[in-house]
Amino acid sequence: MDRGRLEAFSDGVFAVAITLLVIALAVPEPGRGALGQQLASHWPSFAAYVVSFFTIGIIWVNHHNLVRNFTAVDRPLLFLNLLLLFFVVTIPFATATVAAYLRDGGADASLAAAIYQGVFLGMSLAFGTLFWWSIRHRYLAIPLTGAAARTALVRFAIGNVAYAAAIGLAYLSAPASLLVSALIAAYYVYEQTPARRPAPAGGAPAGGAPGDAEQWDAEPGDGDERRGDGE
Amino acid sequence: MDRGRLEAFSDGVFAVAITLLVIALAVPEPGRGALGQQLASHWPSFAAYVVSFFTIGIIWVNHHNLVRNFTAVDRPLLFLNLLLLFFVVTIPFATATVAAYLRDGGADASLAAAIYQGVFLGMSLAFGTLFWWSIRHRYLAIPLTGAAARTALVRFAIGNVAYAAAIGLAYLSAPASLLVSALIAAYYVYEQTPARRPAPAGGAPAGGAPGDAEQWDAEPGDGDERRGDGE
Amino acid sequence: MDRGRLEAFSDGVFAVAITLLVIALAVPEPGRGALGQQLASHWPSFAAYVVSFFTIGIIWVNHHNLVRNFTAVDRPLLFLNLLLLFFVVTIPFATATVAAYLRDGGADASLAAAIYQGVFLGMSLAFGTLFWWSIRHRYLAIPLTGAAARTALVRFAIGNVAYAAAIGLAYLSAPASLLVSALIAAYYVYEQTPARRPAPAGGAPAGGAPGDAEQWDAEPGDGDERRGDGE
Amino acid sequence: MDRGRLEAFSDGVFAVAITLLVIALAVPEPGRGALGQQLASHWPSFAAYVVSFFTIGIIWVNHHNLVRNFTAVDRPLLFLNLLLLFFVVTIPFATATVAAYLRDGGADASLAAAIYQGVFLGMSLAFGTLFWWSIRHRYLAIPLTGAAARTALVRFAIGNVAYAAAIGLAYLSAPASLLVSALIAAYYVYEQTPARRPAPAGGAPAGGAPGDAEQWDAEPGDGDERRGDGE
Repeated sequence: MDRGRLEAFSDGVFAVAITLLVIALAVPEPGRGALGQQLASHWPSFAAYVVSFFTIGIIWVNHHNLVRNFTAVDRPLLFLNLLLLFFVVTIPFATATVAAYLRDGGADASLAAAIYQGVFLGMSLAFGTLFWWSIRHRYLAIPLTGAAARTALVRFAIGNVAYAAAIGLAYLSAPASLLVSALIAAYYVYEQTPARRPAPAGGAPAGGAPGDAEQWDAEPGDGDERRGDGE
Repeated sequence: MDRGRLEAFSDGVFAVAITLLVIALAVPEPGRGALGQQLASHWPSFAAYVVSFFTIGIIWVNHHNLVRNFTAVDRPLLFLNLLLLFFVVTIPFATATVAAYLRDGGADASLAAAIYQGVFLGMSLAFGTLFWWSIRHRYLAIPLTGAAARTALVRFAIGNVAYAAAIGLAYLSAPASLLVSALIAAYYVYEQTPARRPAPAGGAPAGGAPGDAEQWDAEPGDGDERRGDGE
Repeated sequence: MDRGRLEAFSDGVFAVAITLLVIALAVPEPGRGALGQQLASHWPSFAAYVVSFFTIGIIWVNHHNLVRNFTAVDRPLLFLNLLLLFFVVTIPFATATVAAYLRDGGADASLAAAIYQGVFLGMSLAFGTLFWWSIRHRYLAIPLTGAAARTALVRFAIGNVAYAAAIGLAYLSAPASLLVSALIAAYYVYEQTPARRPAPAGGAPAGGAPGDAEQWDAEPGDGDERRGDGE
Repeated sequence: MDRGRLEAFSDGVFAVAITLLVIALAVPEPGRGALGQQLASHWPSFAAYVVSFFTIGIIWVNHHNLVRNFTAVDRPLLFLNLLLLFFVVTIPFATATVAAYLRDGGADASLAAAIYQGVFLGMSLAFGTLFWWSIRHRYLAIPLTGAAARTALVRFAIGNVAYAAAIGLAYLSAPASLLVSALIAAYYVYEQTPARRPAPAGGAPAGGAPGDAEQWDAEPGDGDERRGDGE
């Protein structure tokens, strides 16, 4: 299995799942009250739509960062990736469910929000396992020393803990748990899997010796990937 | 992040969103009146479908023209692209909403048309920001001087102003605002982001010295891209 | 515009449109009669589904054969391609409409079948125009002389005539017109746009001098493309 | 037809079909009983969703393994591939049907389960024919001797027999037949089409002389594909 088709299939699934989210937005119908009121009463649909869209978008960005570092793909990795995609594909269903129940409150709203967070947790655990497997089998182009690997995994795992906490929070306040998943998405905009830093035009690594375990995009700045494939 | 997977994911989202538009076309049902009458009464669905299809199609063409000039992709650019895709994915929802309300007229038709134009405006603003960011950080293979960059941005920004005007127009006449968005689509068929002009077979640039800021496809003629990768 | 991304976007639209056809298959529901009877009464859905699936599949094969011969892509070609995709995307709607009305017979069945054939005709005309434009502007890697080009266009145009005839036939017998579109699909399995014949391992063209206008896949045999990129 | 676009189109169809499965999951609605009870009563939807997801995922993995060994693609191969995709695209419909009828039991549940297994059987037969055609016409980069080819086809064909048996089993117990298709999916995780084993860094084949018919991934281990394209 070469990396290219793994990326192509994953990109396809991410692209379809992120676009199918729109189906969770119930189209208003004439005769059921003024359009403005219908839209206002559907606010949980729009909130869940936005959170799910950017969560899938950010998973995609981080998935790409991870996979492009793979120097090899074995069969277990393919199935771990399939497990990740399973949770990604389930997100539109969980989004539509939480959108349908959030406004009514009560036990059903909590259960719907817990399911929503549970799907995110499953996705996050699958991603973490994929990450861990690729480190353990040394499939990454960036060698990570034991300590750096542990740090990377721990920092990544914070998302898992937060999603688990959001499941509990759903039973106290379903809307609050939705807010937490929005914050987790914002966290992953900054916190990333280790990424290969492209060499500058002169040929020498920008930030250290080749093989330096600290070659991270920990501080994604403007200058980091400039001139990636041009000039 | 290399450009290739950004294009692959974006292409996937564009392709799914443009195809999901068909879901906004309510399939007629036997027993609800003659088929011809049902179809005739659904004319706003078809009009909105055509406008949305070609708007997404033209965004895709211009998106491609812009992205293939990128010499580097940084993380903010990825998230600006995600923001653009967010509005693209929302177009099928806005299309179905305007299709449902346009015929009835009144305040709801105006609101539905204003939402439709608002989604286009959001998309256009996201595209403009992406364009501006790539110029400002000098990610384009075609260097633009200050004056040329300003001209390019101003000419591009005309679409934003037109969409904003269409939101206002929606409250005077919803069908007229739909017509305006059709005209904006026609405008962007001709007005484009700057594009790298491929060198002719002889190796010398066709229209100026290398680095000439005016290397545009301002007049897209038959001869411009002939022999792009053949012969 | 390079050919690669035109192919990627078109492939995405073809893939989504062909898969969305499944939505035209109404899922039977418990309580509306025995499952077997429901499925039997839905036979037009299944017939239209099969015809539409293979029609899109064959368009895709022929589209690929044409596009991979392009040595250049200009902006009119992009928009002709977009027009082709417009009709492809509309096929799931036309399929669902004919599936809903075919069984009842009468004027509505004829109109539904005529719309179905009309979408195929639009698609076929858009494809033919794309083909004609690429010949006229000499974008094909296989140069066609005047006579060969005329022959190719005439042979291709037979499908247009057949679809137009099927529109008329729809008013005599809607099921018969469905059968005609199945036969047209079968015709295009054999009749193709001119395709570049890969050179054999020895390096010499298999069937003529380089530039020979007759380098067709008119008789697609096993041996034609063997060893395309291997050995 | 080059292999690349065959893969791109197939990947697109696989990705859309696997994601459309989520549509078979009926989103619960407020006012129809407690959410937990609704979800519990929908267990056949979830079971069928999981089985279908991993079945399509595994077909995709094996499809990739097969296609990347193709040294040539002829027109019959394209249409055999289209036939395979036809059954893949039909899986979401069959999944929704079995999900709707499984819980009620009786003749309709058996028929629904038999249709579900029948679509899997059709998919499996199409895949087997594709495999057989590529062996017979020597399109595979790994030459298989007569005996090895027979063994490969027989081992592959076990799935066909199992799906045919599951059709019969559906009339004894519909849920049991669902379980059988889950087991077949698990079987194909291990049993595979022959795959090209990448050469190690030193350049010499890892497990035998070039052309050795036994170059299989029969025992997919961690070490098999390590260092595939890196280092």
